[in-house]
Amino acid sequence: MATEPIIASKKPLMRALAGERQSRPPIWLMRQAGRYLPEYREVRAGVSGFLELCYSPNLAAEVTLQPLRRYDLDAAIVFADILLVPHAMGVNLDFREGEGPVITPIRNPIGLAKLTPEKVMDGVAPVFETLRILARELPENVTLIGFAGAPWTVATYMVEGRGGTDFSNTLGWAWQAPDEFAFLMDILVETTAAYLIAQIDAGAEVVQLFDSWAGALPEPLFRRWCIQPNAQIVAKVNAARPGVPVIGFPKGAGAGYVDFVRDTGVNAVSLDQSVPASWAAKALDPACTIQGNLDPQALVAGGDALESEVRRIMAAFSDRPHIFNLGHGIPKYTPPEHVGQLIDLVHQTAES
Amino acid sequence: MATEPIIASKKPLMRALAGERQSRPPIWLMRQAGRYLPEYREVRAGVSGFLELCYSPNLAAEVTLQPLRRYDLDAAIVFADILLVPHAMGVNLDFREGEGPVITPIRNPIGLAKLTPEKVMDGVAPVFETLRILARELPENVTLIGFAGAPWTVATYMVEGRGGTDFSNTLGWAWQAPDEFAFLMDILVETTAAYLIAQIDAGAEVVQLFDSWAGALPEPLFRRWCIQPNAQIVAKVNAARPGVPVIGFPKGAGAGYVDFVRDTGVNAVSLDQSVPASWAAKALDPACTIQGNLDPQALVAGGDALESEVRRIMAAFSDRPHIFNLGHGIPKYTPPEHVGQLIDLVHQTAES
Repeated sequence: MATEPIIASKKPLMRALAGERQSRPPIWLMRQAGRYLPEYREVRAGVSGFLELCYSPNLAAEVTLQPLRRYDLDAAIVFADILLVPHAMGVNLDFREGEGPVITPIRNPIGLAKLTPEKVMDGVAPVFETLRILARELPENVTLIGFAGAPWTVATYMVEGRGGTDFSNTLGWAWQAPDEFAFLMDILVETTAAYLIAQIDAGAEVVQLFDSWAGALPEPLFRRWCIQPNAQIVAKVNAARPGVPVIGFPKGAGAGYVDFVRDTGVNAVSLDQSVPASWAAKALDPACTIQGNLDPQALVAGGDALESEVRRIMAAFSDRPHIFNLGHGIPKYTPPEHVGQLIDLVHQTAES
Repeated sequence: MATEPIIASKKPLMRALAGERQSRPPIWLMRQAGRYLPEYREVRAGVSGFLELCYSPNLAAEVTLQPLRRYDLDAAIVFADILLVPHAMGVNLDFREGEGPVITPIRNPIGLAKLTPEKVMDGVAPVFETLRILARELPENVTLIGFAGAPWTVATYMVEGRGGTDFSNTLGWAWQAPDEFAFLMDILVETTAAYLIAQIDAGAEVVQLFDSWAGALPEPLFRRWCIQPNAQIVAKVNAARPGVPVIGFPKGAGAGYVDFVRDTGVNAVSLDQSVPASWAAKALDPACTIQGNLDPQALVAGGDALESEVRRIMAAFSDRPHIFNLGHGIPKYTPPEHVGQLIDLVHQTAES
């Protein structure tokens, strides 16, 4: 499936990624399998921790499929986490309730020397099994998406040790000892590319790279630690599995999205909700498919706000290949019925 | 002083704001009076809390002047806080060590009805006294800057109650009940404009509006709740005190900086460090002075990183009126000697 030329696929998401403009854009939602769904919370309550769920292929496949039973979605994204790669490399990782991931931070060459990149593929092997299950189980028109964290974003977690910081340790390392920091980033480029290629071999038809903290990078570091590693991974995936589209997501990059699209070679770019759609529609290379970029809080709000936002975003991107999505993951307090309303609105707007 | 036509001033910062390109750009640093200075920490240790320091004109003037005794800076910004306006309006505000400001949140019309905007000018009166002291004490070539929070950013603190959130309460209110939210925003526009005008009358030669959380706003809300209120305040200040420049700072606005500059009427715009200088130099209306945009972490790092960043930023803005500054406030862990090195680098680069 992976090596089939994308242009030949009849799936709406694959057609958008092949550059086809569709009056009814395909839709999926970041974190569509998650805590806003009671059936997800039920599965989650039955395991000892978030990581156990990621490492249990049957359960991970089950929660991946849950939103597809409720909603007419055009894609499923494998249930996993961007921190599985560093975890497989030997970092001490714990998910604490209400606190997010906590890692014993790596901030010097001694910490780097302890990393075990050669163990990554064994550690993440359950994700491949989840993908194989999903490839068998998914409805015919639904595209299976694999993913990984981009190196900069994964590095921030490894170096800071927790979220909610000003990235001072990671930026400080990148500014003061770029060669040391490059050692870490090179490891992440290599392991992430191999991980994505293996996800494709296990059934992923598309892969997305999440660079969630790209917005923390000033211009020269954005080029060096966001654009360059993303481009390296795209090149490796393209060389190994030609024809499989890659979606990039340099969240918070602002005007930097222009260079990111031009210089990474991604087939599509996911826009966060801060990006003005009217600007992006003109400024970004027209060969690139756009994914996004509804404010998750407009989904939570529902009603008139949701309706007018759906119309605005679809109108802005009507001249380009477009995949409807959020600008960020679904919040856990989203009313599940709003997701159904959103999909209906996208379909109705396409027909009007 | 305030009504003197800005073009006639010989002060470097005022000349930059009047549109003059200078080979040696004036420089000041956001949060230049602050915790990275031992003499600040000494004054701070002598008062019971952060708010007491803001409300003690002699002490606030003293900490404002401290960085000027160490460094060759072109401006002083009055020591105060963007939350003094809501505090004067009756919100319950507390600054807790390591936690930042904590407010009893306002999320409904009952909370709005309790606000006392008519008390704002009395509550913030100590800031005017601080400005009067500074206007007497400042060295001849140093410009005195007043400031306030922009309405959206102040509203996020009032509605969320604390920092570090996803702004779900504020965005939810703005999406679901725009008329209620407009009531709060209109109060903030009125009180903030009056506060800035009174700061000018007390000696501020320039005022800056900090919209620190503008980056949380999707396109239509950015227009409605960032650009529009900033434009309203600029218009009120311009009408009341013609010739006094206003600096805007829609932090995190990305490509939105273009419309902000075009539509608010600000004389200058402060760029956060995520904005590519090479892009901004071309994309932003050339009539607008640019302020910024060194990564604070490059200042913390010092050395080669600091030197190359100073050269890059000065080169990028060499064809425009430019005020050198950071993209965000000085971190508390900044080595004070790096600030002196930064100013030397700006001066040396101008001469080379």
